[in-house]
Amino acid sequence: MNHTATPTAIVPASRTKTVGPFSPGVSIGPLLQVAGQVGVAPTAPDASAPAPVASVRTQTLQALDNVREVLTEGRTDWEDVLMIRVYLTDTSHLEEFNDTYREYFSGHGCETLPARTTVYVGLPAGLLVEIDALAVHGDH
Amino acid sequence: MNHTATPTAIVPASRTKTVGPFSPGVSIGPLLQVAGQVGVAPTAPDASAPAPVASVRTQTLQALDNVREVLTEGRTDWEDVLMIRVYLTDTSHLEEFNDTYREYFSGHGCETLPARTTVYVGLPAGLLVEIDALAVHGDH
Amino acid sequence: MNHTATPTAIVPASRTKTVGPFSPGVSIGPLLQVAGQVGVAPTAPDASAPAPVASVRTQTLQALDNVREVLTEGRTDWEDVLMIRVYLTDTSHLEEFNDTYREYFSGHGCETLPARTTVYVGLPAGLLVEIDALAVHGDH
Repeated sequence: MNHTATPTAIVPASRTKTVGPFSPGVSIGPLLQVAGQVGVAPTAPDASAPAPVASVRTQTLQALDNVREVLTEGRTDWEDVLMIRVYLTDTSHLEEFNDTYREYFSGHGCETLPARTTVYVGLPAGLLVEIDALAVHGDH
Repeated sequence: MNHTATPTAIVPASRTKTVGPFSPGVSIGPLLQVAGQVGVAPTAPDASAPAPVASVRTQTLQALDNVREVLTEGRTDWEDVLMIRVYLTDTSHLEEFNDTYREYFSGHGCETLPARTTVYVGLPAGLLVEIDALAVHGDH
Repeated sequence: MNHTATPTAIVPASRTKTVGPFSPGVSIGPLLQVAGQVGVAPTAPDASAPAPVASVRTQTLQALDNVREVLTEGRTDWEDVLMIRVYLTDTSHLEEFNDTYREYFSGHGCETLPARTTVYVGLPAGLLVEIDALAVHGDH
């Protein structure tokens, strides 16, 4: 096993703003965890204040892009992802979310779709989607 | 370590219907993640439409059976489970849930009960319980 | 790899009361999972009934202490933590929570802050904060 146990913060270059006291991703040993990503571009003027008009589809695609940016920075990709946790705010959003999610992953040619749990919670105003991911490095 | 890093979808034979764009379970390296399971039999006519009359107890036992089916398909069992995440919809359901859960696990002779986090969220209509589990393979 | 796959329950000496059918922590192989901890001292007369007057700050510090107690019992510490899941009950609590959390971690000299997902859920009456953590052992 060629991993050290030293935790490594995974911080893509775009993450010029700290949105809270946590790392966008952390890698320890064979695991890489991506922190919860929302549907706002990391380079947005105020990444903590999403445009409230963004649709479920728009926010989903942005959140998935944000997750992937951290995966890539940590030298992993969707095919290394074991589990995705999805937080939506309204059960009526599931169909639009799933359609967008399915389309996104078919575009990424993932042979094995990650496991997933989807639940409905509260999120800060304007946010409709939050997504995090646990990946296992390919070279462990 | 005799695991490859190739992700393997864990799909029990009963899962003849796809309930969404995700795998029922995924195994990568030493880890096996079971996706969120609800209190509906995978072979139900419409697994996404639970009988709304099912009690917390009934849904809990079915959800645990569904989790275990994926664990077994991936050659793990409850004693390999590190963490169980429980999603209920009402704090008044906790006692009935815990009684059912305790009884279920005493019947399975688990020496070490998994760690657990239980929170109260929204779930699609009729669903009262969702459960997912992270296992670590015994031969890593 | 010098871990056995035998699951080990991590039970600090203070946990004289069982608050539910789960282990405070479980270690299997390289992983240690801390179950959801709330803002009540494990030695409280009734650990399942928090003083409803405790502030977000007070509950946050207690929950973090409870998480750390399990980490320590399992021979890990904050620097081994990959991911922290935070459950709050009200988005208006985030600022106070984050201020407390930031202060706590700066006091613990964590070089790499864990990844984190924060969502807003229901919790039993009086509880404002629940926190769980996934750690990776340093000697894997």
